[in-house]
This record gives sequence, structure tokens and C-alpha cells, in this order.
Amino acid sequence: MKLLGGAVAAVDHGGSLGRASALFPHAPRPFVDLSTGINPHSYPLFELPATALSRLPEAGQLRELAEIAAAAYGAPSAAHVAAAPGTQILLPRVASLLRPGKALVLGPTYAEHARAAAIAGHAVAEVGDFDALAEADLAVLVNPNNPDGRLIEKARLLELAARLRAKGGLLVVDEAFMDVGPIEHSLAGNVDEGGIIVLRSFGKFFGLAGVRLGFALADPLTAERLDAQLGPWAVAGPALEYGIRALSDMKWQTDMRQRLAQDAGRLDTLLGRFNVAVAGGTSLFRYLSFPEAPSLFSALGSSGVLVRHFAERPQVLRIGLPGSEAEWQRLEGALVSWAAQREDAPKEIER
Amino acid sequence: MKLLGGAVAAVDHGGSLGRASALFPHAPRPFVDLSTGINPHSYPLFELPATALSRLPEAGQLRELAEIAAAAYGAPSAAHVAAAPGTQILLPRVASLLRPGKALVLGPTYAEHARAAAIAGHAVAEVGDFDALAEADLAVLVNPNNPDGRLIEKARLLELAARLRAKGGLLVVDEAFMDVGPIEHSLAGNVDEGGIIVLRSFGKFFGLAGVRLGFALADPLTAERLDAQLGPWAVAGPALEYGIRALSDMKWQTDMRQRLAQDAGRLDTLLGRFNVAVAGGTSLFRYLSFPEAPSLFSALGSSGVLVRHFAERPQVLRIGLPGSEAEWQRLEGALVSWAAQREDAPKEIER
Repeated sequence: MKLLGGAVAAVDHGGSLGRASALFPHAPRPFVDLSTGINPHSYPLFELPATALSRLPEAGQLRELAEIAAAAYGAPSAAHVAAAPGTQILLPRVASLLRPGKALVLGPTYAEHARAAAIAGHAVAEVGDFDALAEADLAVLVNPNNPDGRLIEKARLLELAARLRAKGGLLVVDEAFMDVGPIEHSLAGNVDEGGIIVLRSFGKFFGLAGVRLGFALADPLTAERLDAQLGPWAVAGPALEYGIRALSDMKWQTDMRQRLAQDAGRLDTLLGRFNVAVAGGTSLFRYLSFPEAPSLFSALGSSGVLVRHFAERPQVLRIGLPGSEAEWQRLEGALVSWAAQREDAPKEIER
Repeated sequence: MKLLGGAVAAVDHGGSLGRASALFPHAPRPFVDLSTGINPHSYPLFELPATALSRLPEAGQLRELAEIAAAAYGAPSAAHVAAAPGTQILLPRVASLLRPGKALVLGPTYAEHARAAAIAGHAVAEVGDFDALAEADLAVLVNPNNPDGRLIEKARLLELAARLRAKGGLLVVDEAFMDVGPIEHSLAGNVDEGGIIVLRSFGKFFGLAGVRLGFALADPLTAERLDAQLGPWAVAGPALEYGIRALSDMKWQTDMRQRLAQDAGRLDTLLGRFNVAVAGGTSLFRYLSFPEAPSLFSALGSSGVLVRHFAERPQVLRIGLPGSEAEWQRLEGALVSWAAQREDAPKEIER
């Protein structure tokens, strides 16, 4: 168990081209940004009605979004849905639903969960073993996990939720990448039992991270408490428009799941050609864990291909999906350069 | 002093066409919505770059926005600015900066302040007398006030802030309508003294309420605490784009202040023709307080012109500015109808 006392400080993330430029100032531009798990094939953009920008968001539209989200995610009803300007802003609010106690985060995972629990006043620790979560007041896990894709089965989650609920605790399951499954392990349909909060992210699967839209699924009383914290008009006009259209577009969602699975397979094949084994992930990102990770990160970055590294675990990388043939070729070219360096390296030492 | 124990419940607001339709189902459409203080002449819309929707908001862009906002509002520096997806979502976070104590709101005013303070655990009361605010731990006022335009002078505010600061208290000044002045009474330049938070709203003056953008101006440590609560990416891509462009467009802002002042004068003249005296307001809305307010509200609504009424103060109305000649004519026509009803009314009684 690792204590995370300093977790209130800002944490590092992927997805910043500013940071990429600072790290690799001489890399060819534009960067191919594979540092996130955001779908590069975004939901088709459309022209927003001017009123989506000029007028206050309508309460009726928010209710419509909640209904559509409940259906898309498999929550019991719209009353079980709290919509927010991104999942991120929900994290401290969710952690604050319980008075300060013991928060355990199943790690390694998305670092903002520990930070949010610390902000809410909890004593936070990261645990590597799922069963240890039962000791928590607030237990948090990402399912499937970011960055390694680790999956906890639904039956085990429900058992944990029951144990936590019995002592007034709370289980938070961040299903940020559950859009690409395995959906049978989602707890979205179980939130009415109480003591369970499921977080769903709109921006990742729909490739629209800039609109800021996320959801907490919970029992109606808890959803209402979260709504009260966010206040009226928390979800912006553009997020309402895109959320309503994209979440109700089942054909796009089905097709996209297939396409992402194919792309993920293609990425594994490409990496395999360079003897890089994929150790896990989801259809939205792949997870690498091998000793040469630091050299791969640097070589790709120098070629203008940005992947996600983790300061405290240098042997680990997360790679998102290229979004176009040009990006696939940039990645392949960068891998070729890295492989050439790798072959040269022993010779240098021999000399 | 009026205790506001039940203030956690949702409160009524202007700006909902859904609510207007329910109130006036037979009114001619479209509604002319004068129920808010939002500028009907919105900042010119432009095409957003696709990345504003698809990519995570960039930290560098957020810093740029904070710098521009500091300059536009007169805050000491970007470090004194916390940007949020609307001022609304900041209110419970600002109220939570102090441990639960006594919150006093200078009323009558925007009802969300009392609700936010109650959510944060404070014992909340509304006071009508500015001097009574000195008894608070958390004192909140809107300056100039919504809906009546009441102004508290800067010297008195600074004196109150000093008294509160001396006992570890906090003064929150919501300057949601300060864009139209009187700017010499803004506390934006004084937040470094500590114990002062100034709230500024982007959507009202720029007529872009749907993008959700608001600011807290505070000493750097407090601004950082608010930033931590909101987490990374709290401001959406479209809000960053519009915020950066509009807040740095000084010519538009100067011209718009003039235009709004002219429009407000035109509205007063029009109302005066029907013997309706304007009792206060700002250039973004006018405030009426007279016995016939309920009949005016109903008559305008039946004609499809929506103004803001207040359930607990039926003699009070707030009227926003029409946005086009067609809207001015709809308002004038509605006033003519109301005046005709008013003349008929005594005859009905005489009969």
C-alpha cells in the first residue's frame, strides 16, 4: 500500500501539444498525438445552432440528454444520471459525497482519482490488490483500467459494493473506456442498489474531448445531490447538442466499436513487427511494458510521434490509435528509425 | 433578517423557453425572450477549429485566457484568475473555501448565492442592510445588484472586506453585470489584499451564455485552490476560443457598452410612454417595481413577450433588452395591448 499524501498537487497527463513541443523541440511537425485514449475518429462535426452558444442551456434539453444517456449507458432511468462538464470536474464532488475517511484507489491508474479523494479530505492510498479495497470507506477503480486494460468482473464488483454499502461506504467505478467494452461487466444497470457510482466519459469514445461532457450514474438521491453541486446550466450548449445527437446514434456507436477493434489489432500487428509485445489495453489504447520503453518513447518523440509515458514507471507506455493513413505511416517510420538505432546501439558499445 | 434554511432546493430563473411555453401556451411564437440580463447582441460567431471540439483543451490556451481575463477585468495578474465553466458552478466551491459558519447575502438578489452557501454547510440568511454584512463569516453581494441595479461603493466594500479579513472571513462580490459599469466600483484590482473574491461572468455581456465561462478573481493561493477543485480541462474548447477572442477585443467591448446604454435608454422611453417608471437596473436589464406588475407580466406573456417575474415579490419585474427592430415592435405591440386592457378594466367594473 502506497500512501499518497502529496496527491493534491497537479498531475501529469497526455494530450498536451504544448508539453510535447517542450520535450521534443526539434521534432518534425505536426505532432502525431498518440498520448491519449481519445478516439481519433470523432463523431461527425455539424454546425451548431447559434442559440447553443448565445442562450442559456435549456432545462428541457438537459432532461433529454439524461434520458438518452441512461439508454445509451444502460442506467435504470434519467433520474439515475447526473450530467457534468466532463467527468473530471465530478471527481472531487463524488469523493465529497462521503465525509472524510479512508479512500483506496486500485492502482496504478488514472492519477486524478487519488488527487480528488485527497481534495475531499480523505486519507488516500493506492492498493494493487482488488480484495484490499474492502477495507475502504471510498473505493475507486477504473474498469477497464487505464492504462493497462485490467478488468474486474462484475460479480466481484457487486460483492465489493455490497460490503461497502453495508458500512455506509461507496464504490466508484470509472468506466471511462467501457464504451468499447466488455459491456457485460459494466455496473451502469446496478446503480439503483445504492453505494455505487459509475462514471462515464463522453469525449473519449466519441472523440470530442473538447466539448467537456461526462456523467455520474447513481441512485436518484445521489444523482440529485451531484446535480445540486453543479447547479443549473452546468452542461454547455455545444455539449448538449453533441451529447444528444451522438449518444442516440446507435449505428455510429456499433460501427465505431468494430472500427476501433480493427485499428487496435492493426496497431498490435505493427508493434509486433518490431518485437514490441502489447501487454494490455482497450480498443482505444494499447499498453506496453518492457525495458526498452524509455528509448522507444524518446525515439518516437524525436520523430514527432507522441505517446504517453509515466514518470514513476519508465518501463511502461500507452499508445493511442493513429487517426489517418498519414499518421500510421509516421508511426511506422518512427518505429523503423527506432529499430535502426536499436541495432546500432550494441555496435557503439563494442567499439 | 430572513432565514433561508430551505435554500438548497432548486430555484427559479429566467431564460427558459420551455417554462415560457408552459406558462403561456397560447402565446404567438417565437417568444421574445426578455427574461434574462443576457446581451441580445452576442459577440460575432465564428467557425471553431475542429480541434476545439475534438482535442482536450490545452493548458497553454487556458493560461492565455487567464492573462487576457486579468487584463480585461483589471485583476493584478493571471495568477489571480480561476476560470470555470460558468460562474454558477463556482458558487458552491467559493462558499466552501470557508468552514461552515454564518453566511449573509445582501438581498433581494440572485437566489443561487444563498443556495450555494447552504450547500457548503453555512447557516444562511438574507439581509437588506449592507452594514449587517459585517456580522458574517461569508458575506455575499451582487454589485451592481440583480435585479434592481443597487450599487455599493468601492470604499464601503473595501472597509467591509478588511473587517471580514481580520476575523478570517470572506467577502464575495458577484460582478456579473459590472462589464457595463460603473467600473470604478469594481474590486477586481483589490483581490490581492486577500479575503475578497470577485466573480465575473463571460456569457452575459458577450451574449454567449451557452458556452459556459466564468471567472473567480482572488489572491493567488485562493485562485489555485479553486483551480484544484475544478481540475484540468474545466473550460471547454469553445469557451477557450470565444473567451480569448472576445475578452481581448477592446473595441467591441467599448462600442457595445455604448450601444447597450442607448438601448437601455430607448427601453426606458418606451416604458415611460405607457406610464411605467423604471426603478433601477443596469444597461443589460431594467427593473420595474409597481402594483400593476402582475398584469403587465401576464399581458406581455400572452403576447409572446417574456419578462422575468419573481414569485415572492409580485410587484417586481426585470426586463432585458430586445435584440432587433422586430423584437422592439413585438414589445411595443404587447404594451399597447396591455394598455388597452388597462383602460377597459375600470369600465368592466363600472358595468
